[in-house]
Amino acid sequence: MDLVETLETGCRVSLDVDAYARDSAPFCPAGVAAVVALPRTVQEVQHVLRTAFELGVPVVPQGARTGLAGAANAVDGCVVLSLKGLDRVLEVDPANRLARCEPGVTTRALQEAVAAHGMFYPPDPVSAQVCTIGGNIATGAGGLCCVKYGVTGDYVLGLAVVLADGRLMRTGRQTAKGVAGLDLTRLFVGSEGTLGVIVEATLALRPARGPRQALLAQYGTATEAGQAVAAIIAAGHQPSALELMDRTTCGAIRELGHDLAAAPAVIVECDDGGLPAIAALIGGTVTDRALELRRLIAPAISRVAAGIGGRPTAFIEDVAVPRGELATLIDRVERIADAHGLFIGTTGHAGDGNLHPVVVFDSADPVMAEHAATAYDEIMAAGLDLGGTITGEHGVGLLKRDWLARELDPAALLLQRGVKTVFDPTGILNPGKVFP
Amino acid sequence: MDLVETLETGCRVSLDVDAYARDSAPFCPAGVAAVVALPRTVQEVQHVLRTAFELGVPVVPQGARTGLAGAANAVDGCVVLSLKGLDRVLEVDPANRLARCEPGVTTRALQEAVAAHGMFYPPDPVSAQVCTIGGNIATGAGGLCCVKYGVTGDYVLGLAVVLADGRLMRTGRQTAKGVAGLDLTRLFVGSEGTLGVIVEATLALRPARGPRQALLAQYGTATEAGQAVAAIIAAGHQPSALELMDRTTCGAIRELGHDLAAAPAVIVECDDGGLPAIAALIGGTVTDRALELRRLIAPAISRVAAGIGGRPTAFIEDVAVPRGELATLIDRVERIADAHGLFIGTTGHAGDGNLHPVVVFDSADPVMAEHAATAYDEIMAAGLDLGGTITGEHGVGLLKRDWLARELDPAALLLQRGVKTVFDPTGILNPGKVFP
Repeated sequence: MDLVETLETGCRVSLDVDAYARDSAPFCPAGVAAVVALPRTVQEVQHVLRTAFELGVPVVPQGARTGLAGAANAVDGCVVLSLKGLDRVLEVDPANRLARCEPGVTTRALQEAVAAHGMFYPPDPVSAQVCTIGGNIATGAGGLCCVKYGVTGDYVLGLAVVLADGRLMRTGRQTAKGVAGLDLTRLFVGSEGTLGVIVEATLALRPARGPRQALLAQYGTATEAGQAVAAIIAAGHQPSALELMDRTTCGAIRELGHDLAAAPAVIVECDDGGLPAIAALIGGTVTDRALELRRLIAPAISRVAAGIGGRPTAFIEDVAVPRGELATLIDRVERIADAHGLFIGTTGHAGDGNLHPVVVFDSADPVMAEHAATAYDEIMAAGLDLGGTITGEHGVGLLKRDWLARELDPAALLLQRGVKTVFDPTGILNPGKVFP
Repeated sequence: MDLVETLETGCRVSLDVDAYARDSAPFCPAGVAAVVALPRTVQEVQHVLRTAFELGVPVVPQGARTGLAGAANAVDGCVVLSLKGLDRVLEVDPANRLARCEPGVTTRALQEAVAAHGMFYPPDPVSAQVCTIGGNIATGAGGLCCVKYGVTGDYVLGLAVVLADGRLMRTGRQTAKGVAGLDLTRLFVGSEGTLGVIVEATLALRPARGPRQALLAQYGTATEAGQAVAAIIAAGHQPSALELMDRTTCGAIRELGHDLAAAPAVIVECDDGGLPAIAALIGGTVTDRALELRRLIAPAISRVAAGIGGRPTAFIEDVAVPRGELATLIDRVERIADAHGLFIGTTGHAGDGNLHPVVVFDSADPVMAEHAATAYDEIMAAGLDLGGTITGEHGVGLLKRDWLARELDPAALLLQRGVKTVFDPTGILNPGKVFP
């Protein structure tokens, strides 16, 4: 029997490989998959891996394909393994402050399921409505409230994983604390499908948080906005979101008809009653509108892109620097935009030093696309130069694979490859991703 | 040149191997080291590892030897590598909420250094006065305020590590977030010296916390005390400590002449002003004395041990269960104590489901020592049976090595061994520890 026939004996498949070819990253090649596997149970995932392992066929795991680094892009001849069918919340346990769920559950569905029990699952990527818990774990996703509550990895207590050869393995624990052996659970966080396929997660929860209040403050320069962020941090406040939008982005939102100056903006949200003290410190207006403005970034950018014409593409960068370097990074991005004649709107999780410059360009225009690609490289170089990282929360995938070696210690890269080989000796798990 | 001569060319050494033979764990054999290396710089650590690697000599890293699992015990013919001489706080950066320090800095020294900048380093093992940051990271140490602030691993952003062959490697980042490649930093947390030697850590800090208030509540039964803990959790409170002392322990403290009933006690500390609401929920008395009582556990146990005579030994267990199983675990431990005619006082971090039953026995009495060893096994078995872990925060070392296989998935254990081999292909790093 060939690959597809064998898969079909134990799992639903689809031959519509184009529909599953790529995630949401630009600049990344996608191969042509042989078949898409659509399991609904752990046993079906095991069947897919066993089959692929025996036939030596690559496997590319996929969640909602909202990833921004190409980690979920198909490779030639692979089995695309969509985990969206494993979409059950298995348990919400308020007494032990934990939940168990399958990887295809959307982040929003999990948040809502635990909220019904008076609990709170903090990680909140902007794509929470559609992205999946499995994808969040595989990429080490972040979001808006990381500044107070930490990232996805901080909430993963244990996993069930299907290994390269189809064996099912459990890692981690069901307890608040535990140090029995090496932390394989954490090793899977951010591993982007290169070590195994996550089929179940045990997640820590927090109690529901207090009422939220938000504030919008605008400044004359990015430096002043950066100083406002630094002042909040220095005063020991713990906002539940601390976001920044640059002049360009605010201008684009203003163009949508909203009452917002084309000037750098800081958005602060608190869930501990601390907002008045922050308002006294940095100025601004307390308004529920503040975080809604943040949701206008995507439509505002879309409008800018549409104005560019051709095949408009908006590429979201993801660099993180030490918080103190925030204003410097924004300045450098503005200079990079000017030098290349590009629209680059910078927004991000300022409280974490994590910025998302959005480069808008016509990908049908080879000169402009070349400028965009160069600008993207220059932004990462600026991040590294300021003591930062090439990716705060989006991951490496294909997009930043060649940059990984520029960030990592060569010895660390060698050891990472060694670990990869321990988990995937024949190299069938998401080959070509992450490691240069 | 032989081992000692070669070491001496680049590092201070001592031949007083007995003084460095073991950590604070009972039941664990210690070998006879060839020599103790006492480096004061990273370069000297590299020299020690290069020498040991070339000569094929085992290396056993040590911090303050407060460990309770035998992970720092010498093995025959090894180089004991004491990191206590690398004891500098290198940087405290309030603007970026991080600190950098060497591994031999005591936890208390780091806490005080950052407090001087208005910052807070939460992990607080009971031995904070003497234990070291390197040891905390190597064992994945916890403490009292984990229930609100998490464990050591949650604060480790990056590391510098000397590898088995003497190369220096950096992992992680200086930024709040980052997902560039596999998380080697977290892999070193809790690795107990089996993967490399930590020579520098970049640690996340929090702003100084609010004033603390504490409460003591006593109950008729362990079940009622467990219910009080569960009620606090269920109501969504976030105490900064949520401790429990059983009837036996409180009785021993009472014997010291303190005004405390011989009945199960719950101690609650809050740093967010939430204590009155908790007092309304579970009763008890608001008193600054509450956490001081907790410090009396050691002297109270010492007095009990002295009364036993012979070669009195107090062995501190470390099991964690889902919070909801707390009262059941306490009951089981009491039954185990009765069955073996032993004094076992159970205290612990109730809010995390992490208990430390203390078994007191005369290790010169072979029958009693046998009972103590059996009781210790039965406590771990009870922890596993209740869905817990054999170690919440003390680690595996030698003491629980054979138990690791009972907790871990066989596939996970095999992969852990594989990872160990990638980092330490010739097996010189703390051989015989952790892995059965």
